[in-house]
Amino acid sequence: MGVDAIRFVDGALELIDQRVLPHEETWIRCTNATETADAIRDMVVRGAPAIGITAAYGYALEVMAGGDRAAAHEVLYAARPTAVNLRWALEELAEVPTDALLDAAKRMHAEDIAINQAMGGHGAALLPKGAQLYHHCNTGALATGGWGTALGIVRSAAAADPSVHVWVGETRPYLQGARLTAWELLQEGIDCTLVADSVAATLMAAGKVDAVLVGCDRVAANGDVANKVGTLMLAVLAKRYDVPVYVGMPMSTLDTRCPTGADIPIEERDASEVRGHRGVEWAADVPVYNPAFDVTPAELIAGWVTENGLWWPPGHARS
Amino acid sequence: MGVDAIRFVDGALELIDQRVLPHEETWIRCTNATETADAIRDMVVRGAPAIGITAAYGYALEVMAGGDRAAAHEVLYAARPTAVNLRWALEELAEVPTDALLDAAKRMHAEDIAINQAMGGHGAALLPKGAQLYHHCNTGALATGGWGTALGIVRSAAAADPSVHVWVGETRPYLQGARLTAWELLQEGIDCTLVADSVAATLMAAGKVDAVLVGCDRVAANGDVANKVGTLMLAVLAKRYDVPVYVGMPMSTLDTRCPTGADIPIEERDASEVRGHRGVEWAADVPVYNPAFDVTPAELIAGWVTENGLWWPPGHARS
Repeated sequence: MGVDAIRFVDGALELIDQRVLPHEETWIRCTNATETADAIRDMVVRGAPAIGITAAYGYALEVMAGGDRAAAHEVLYAARPTAVNLRWALEELAEVPTDALLDAAKRMHAEDIAINQAMGGHGAALLPKGAQLYHHCNTGALATGGWGTALGIVRSAAAADPSVHVWVGETRPYLQGARLTAWELLQEGIDCTLVADSVAATLMAAGKVDAVLVGCDRVAANGDVANKVGTLMLAVLAKRYDVPVYVGMPMSTLDTRCPTGADIPIEERDASEVRGHRGVEWAADVPVYNPAFDVTPAELIAGWVTENGLWWPPGHARS
Repeated sequence: MGVDAIRFVDGALELIDQRVLPHEETWIRCTNATETADAIRDMVVRGAPAIGITAAYGYALEVMAGGDRAAAHEVLYAARPTAVNLRWALEELAEVPTDALLDAAKRMHAEDIAINQAMGGHGAALLPKGAQLYHHCNTGALATGGWGTALGIVRSAAAADPSVHVWVGETRPYLQGARLTAWELLQEGIDCTLVADSVAATLMAAGKVDAVLVGCDRVAANGDVANKVGTLMLAVLAKRYDVPVYVGMPMSTLDTRCPTGADIPIEERDASEVRGHRGVEWAADVPVYNPAFDVTPAELIAGWVTENGLWWPPGHARS
């Protein structure tokens, strides 16, 4: 697989620090719930499935050391409230006996990889030979247990067809595409080209995109998708230019308690992410609006690709 | 006006260095065509009208010092081939006697300001009271002789109605919105908020944009608009969410020799603009596609605002 981002070593959780990739490979060690929540909030680790797995290890470490279950749940859940996997992972572990927690977290990690590989196969089957794919944000090994959701579909497609080419959207403001996805694809030897996000319009208008692949942080019961900001823009463009948008969606991301996208809370992040990057500030000192996610209505999505094949919202007309 | 970017001082052209704004205010001195072409190519100055005026001063300086007219024309024209104003300015001066060239360049500069103020009035009349405007790139005093095209419309609107609010699209990759437009609006005390480009979709979906204002580098005879990359994305979004797109268009930007947008050459710029900014590199070492402009079809545009009022392409149905 080449890329590894979450590991359990010598009784502690270790996370590759995604804030300093691709130029530095540093590992951060977490031994309790608070350290783990800090790592999630500070984006040492990001991506909904990876956050869920990370929280599971943090919860296990805290409870195994005698910490309070409710307090551990609360501190971890508050770290990134948009990601439903985080809640799902914590709820999965709530009833697990203390001495079985670590094995449960490790099983969740291994299952995530298996789930993504199954999803990758289902998604790859939808793509034409020599596909030109557009990928947003990072949904790869760094965002999951180790294979990827939308980028797992790319991995599976490229494994069967090396002529696949990937347009990597840089994904402002946090540049997950430029920093992380481009790095992952380089590690794997998959052909790719980096573009500014708004170049997607030029590419689609020129017929250079066969499919848009995105992940999701939460899917509402009606199929609306909360995902990294920029997804809605891509989906509106794709509709105009008749390009299918496929969502790599582990079933754990479906929130049946959430009727529509309007019910999904959208996290706002700090102005500094927009004003500059890692110590370089380029913007004038003006107010900033920095929503981390947006909501794409189900009608703009061509397929929700899960580990069980395609999922369809109730009542959704298949195109 | 507050903001000044091009001046003729002590027998030379001086340009504010827009590459280091907003944190440094440095002036670059040009005394001949080659220095002026370098400043244009290296983006000391950018924005189609400002490039035209700059080229006019550079041409005058070169020819007044005994330089060859054809060579001066060639070196200046090659600096940014997409901007039709550059060609227009050079052609305006081709037949002017040597001893009248400097006055002709100064007149062109003054006329640009007058043209923009007229355009500003015509555009402001299209906007509702308390308008929420979305502005892309920089089309302000820094991009023109000193008032602005699309941002001139904002200036004129805000002068009459201080409750105007401007969403400033940061405009990747070169960040003209974050660096220059935000700075200009701060200087003028106009209420504004900076966003990543793809946040435009969220804002429009939420009904928070009353009009999109963009400039243009070249308009084809059929009304197709070549402008900063990202314009097409905004226009497609605006169509879906029923938001009008107004183009601030000096008549000098109309290229009647160019039948449609497909005939406009699109400049590609260096990968380094996408990989990082001013010495900080964040992207992995992958190939980059960096088109500086895109082409928006006429059907997505609600109004072409010129110094003479609205212009309509032949045969275009007014909406």
